[in-house]
Amino acid sequence: MVKAELDAVVRFERERPDVYGSAHPKSLLRAIQEDGDHLSKMTNKHIYSADQFDRESLLQLFRLAAKYEANPDRFSTSLQGQILISAFYEPSTRTRLSFESAWHRLGGDIMSITDRSTTGIAKGESLADVGEMFNNYGDCVVLRDTNANSVREMMGALRIPIINAGNGTDEHPTQALADLYTIFKWKPELITNPGAEKINICIVGLPSKMRTVRSLLKLVVSFADCFGRVTIVNDKSRDEMFADDQLQQMLEAGLEVQTSDNLDEVLPDSDVVYINAIAWEGNSFNQYGKQFHIDSQSPLKKDAIVLHPLARGAELCTSLDNTPHNWYFAQARGAVFLRQALLTCLVRRVERVLDIV
Amino acid sequence: MVKAELDAVVRFERERPDVYGSAHPKSLLRAIQEDGDHLSKMTNKHIYSADQFDRESLLQLFRLAAKYEANPDRFSTSLQGQILISAFYEPSTRTRLSFESAWHRLGGDIMSITDRSTTGIAKGESLADVGEMFNNYGDCVVLRDTNANSVREMMGALRIPIINAGNGTDEHPTQALADLYTIFKWKPELITNPGAEKINICIVGLPSKMRTVRSLLKLVVSFADCFGRVTIVNDKSRDEMFADDQLQQMLEAGLEVQTSDNLDEVLPDSDVVYINAIAWEGNSFNQYGKQFHIDSQSPLKKDAIVLHPLARGAELCTSLDNTPHNWYFAQARGAVFLRQALLTCLVRRVERVLDIV
Amino acid sequence: MVKAELDAVVRFERERPDVYGSAHPKSLLRAIQEDGDHLSKMTNKHIYSADQFDRESLLQLFRLAAKYEANPDRFSTSLQGQILISAFYEPSTRTRLSFESAWHRLGGDIMSITDRSTTGIAKGESLADVGEMFNNYGDCVVLRDTNANSVREMMGALRIPIINAGNGTDEHPTQALADLYTIFKWKPELITNPGAEKINICIVGLPSKMRTVRSLLKLVVSFADCFGRVTIVNDKSRDEMFADDQLQQMLEAGLEVQTSDNLDEVLPDSDVVYINAIAWEGNSFNQYGKQFHIDSQSPLKKDAIVLHPLARGAELCTSLDNTPHNWYFAQARGAVFLRQALLTCLVRRVERVLDIV
Repeated sequence: MVKAELDAVVRFERERPDVYGSAHPKSLLRAIQEDGDHLSKMTNKHIYSADQFDRESLLQLFRLAAKYEANPDRFSTSLQGQILISAFYEPSTRTRLSFESAWHRLGGDIMSITDRSTTGIAKGESLADVGEMFNNYGDCVVLRDTNANSVREMMGALRIPIINAGNGTDEHPTQALADLYTIFKWKPELITNPGAEKINICIVGLPSKMRTVRSLLKLVVSFADCFGRVTIVNDKSRDEMFADDQLQQMLEAGLEVQTSDNLDEVLPDSDVVYINAIAWEGNSFNQYGKQFHIDSQSPLKKDAIVLHPLARGAELCTSLDNTPHNWYFAQARGAVFLRQALLTCLVRRVERVLDIV
Repeated sequence: MVKAELDAVVRFERERPDVYGSAHPKSLLRAIQEDGDHLSKMTNKHIYSADQFDRESLLQLFRLAAKYEANPDRFSTSLQGQILISAFYEPSTRTRLSFESAWHRLGGDIMSITDRSTTGIAKGESLADVGEMFNNYGDCVVLRDTNANSVREMMGALRIPIINAGNGTDEHPTQALADLYTIFKWKPELITNPGAEKINICIVGLPSKMRTVRSLLKLVVSFADCFGRVTIVNDKSRDEMFADDQLQQMLEAGLEVQTSDNLDEVLPDSDVVYINAIAWEGNSFNQYGKQFHIDSQSPLKKDAIVLHPLARGAELCTSLDNTPHNWYFAQARGAVFLRQALLTCLVRRVERVLDIV
Repeated sequence: MVKAELDAVVRFERERPDVYGSAHPKSLLRAIQEDGDHLSKMTNKHIYSADQFDRESLLQLFRLAAKYEANPDRFSTSLQGQILISAFYEPSTRTRLSFESAWHRLGGDIMSITDRSTTGIAKGESLADVGEMFNNYGDCVVLRDTNANSVREMMGALRIPIINAGNGTDEHPTQALADLYTIFKWKPELITNPGAEKINICIVGLPSKMRTVRSLLKLVVSFADCFGRVTIVNDKSRDEMFADDQLQQMLEAGLEVQTSDNLDEVLPDSDVVYINAIAWEGNSFNQYGKQFHIDSQSPLKKDAIVLHPLARGAELCTSLDNTPHNWYFAQARGAVFLRQALLTCLVRRVERVLDIV
């Protein structure tokens, strides 16, 4: 390569908006009045399921996340002296780095475990004993495991908080929190003026197999008054589509729930489109719904936003990246701040960041 | 799960004494007068074998560990600017996290190597060259390897201190230090009034194969006047039970050494019961003494304490966890502070933490 | 071991000069006048190829590296608040620890990825998406991959700087920077009095296969007036020896380029001898030039210095370690400071360390 060509190749821009329209958290910050009591209540509960949050606690979490996102450099000592045990027994880079970045930015220290085979579990150690060990070494645990029961077994012995970062096909609560946070950043009026303008959400995925979708639908239930219709798009029967009592929970909350196997029919009437194709089952991943994909030619509403927990494959075409529909990159960015908010509460440092203590 | 049930599942307590009776280090702190000279002598020696410590140095190490344990948040900048190279070529989570937690709590930075195959050793690099590399990158090394000679080979080239965190079946000196520290926290009068009330220690394990046991017995030799009888319990012959001159070393120190294959006969007369079943040999672990185990029905003395280096299996029943005999969790917790004390000395930061410099 | 023997085994010296003659950076520091403008220009370019540096920028980088090396403890907060993503998809300990040590010493935080199989790439995620993820989580990326195209693919999406730490057989620019930095520390007069006393450099290796050699030769081109002759020693034909237009680039710069398969014939006339035997190709390494090796009996010029990117094997005999020819350990040590200089520029912190802003 000649030098001029090389120079062009290595040059990069630091500023490039990854969301058209306003992803700025300030609107959300103004939409919610601070009430630290709800956050103070979170100091002695593990984060296991999206079912455990009530509406007010969610709003305060989102407000704190928005405060962090609006002032990313201000709180750099909030977690000083705190140690996170980042235990990813199931492979992950995205979620692990999201948590670790959140913790580092607030001044904390981290110990990572990325290989299940190096742990005492390989020696037959119980998860309760692993939990007791963690009590002595750290202040907070984040755990991801293919085995859906691991986090529950560990919780029984823990005297420090643990966040379920994905347990098999069961749940991934912080991803769902990040997703709903993104939706409210996009439309704060859903909170300030609930019910005035309901939105329709289309979810391309399989709730029974995808923990991100399962968790998200539980949170949607907490804000049922914001949503007009929830449409689940895949090629399974209703029986295969939902696990446990998820469908019933949604209907009891007053949501209108539809299912469809025709994505292009649903898109023109959807305000939020959430798509995912991968489910971790056992020790590998499976893809569901290969026939469903979205690209710049899809019949999306003009102002519709697209979300994806990432990593993505062919189901979410890169032709959408430079369109105003792309809120999936903002979703990933916001997830760091959402996790900061949650972690701050769990290790009892929230008084350091509230305006009113 | 209904919400009330979920709420009960995710709720946790931060305070739950894991040792009945007093594990508090203050008694030990009062029992030993500070004499920093013995700690200052430790700045230019690698930590290789439990044989290299004399009685006075051990007491000062225990005192410093007790000071750290009594004031866990006070010394958070003692290791500021120092880099630990945490090299665990043999899989471990417990010991690695114990060292890393110790280092983080004192404000230091860490670089971890957890996979032997990613190192230059895979390219045929000598351990001496690896040591020379470490000289340029860090201030202290912790090494665990299945190969018993690795630490010795690396020591020849190192100009920064290294701690042997377990070399094959040979030694694990810091574990033994933590074990003896725990015993003295339990009974400081062993130090203040040596010889007045000797204790009997029962060790269920195989000294010739278990590095934790080998190292511990060497330290017991340094405090022979505290111990009445040492009984080794396993199903091997005396020839197979001890390696090198360990038995001779113990006898020459004046210890009464018994062996037995009947645990329940030994327990009623034992004050400290140390049990372990796992030995790392080659690239995997073996279990010894499967027929020996302790549970809440075992004929333990009323005030006997049980120790285990962990990870444990069936040999140490969970029915003992909520009894006053359980000092194995306190043992794991104290190990962090013991390692803090040792690391502080090795990187020449002990003047920052002594009362009298 | 008796105690006296053990005491001798565990004792170590902290000071032991690893370079005879002066490796001290002060002479280089005096030889170059500070001009921060060249460093400020480096804030928006990825570090991809040794071809992208001009002479003046190189001199300023070397000056800053020398400043760091002369004052290793002074700048311990330069990178405070900055997060490095240390992504070594191809196994490495040496280069990874070199970068991580550099970053830690300046007060930054690190997230490491050491196993390609744990990443989203295993799920089929594009490198562009991985880059977009990194944008949200860190401030700088260091990447090594056996696939030569990975860094280029990632660069397209990155809005934070990335350093190519080795891409297949293509380049390893920071290693070459460290090598030239070492040469100028050894002979600052090459800069202060260019052309007066040209040096001959002998390179034992295969430019077409060894990325360290390829990168180094590109930098030699930038300082062609310092070098009399460049002799490449291996057993390949000229056609196999060079890739792309490397030979042409060297000749056009006015360098005298020789090739030889007889090392002992070349040594008596070489001032700098650079030797390497390993090349990473695909997912493993190959050795080239097994018949070439240097030891204390080799016909080296009296004041010749030997460089090696390390890890070394039989090609560089340990009998040279304690001779004045050994500048390969100084090379490794200096590489940390060179990387500090580069990283400081990339994350826009150079104003914190310049004398004149």
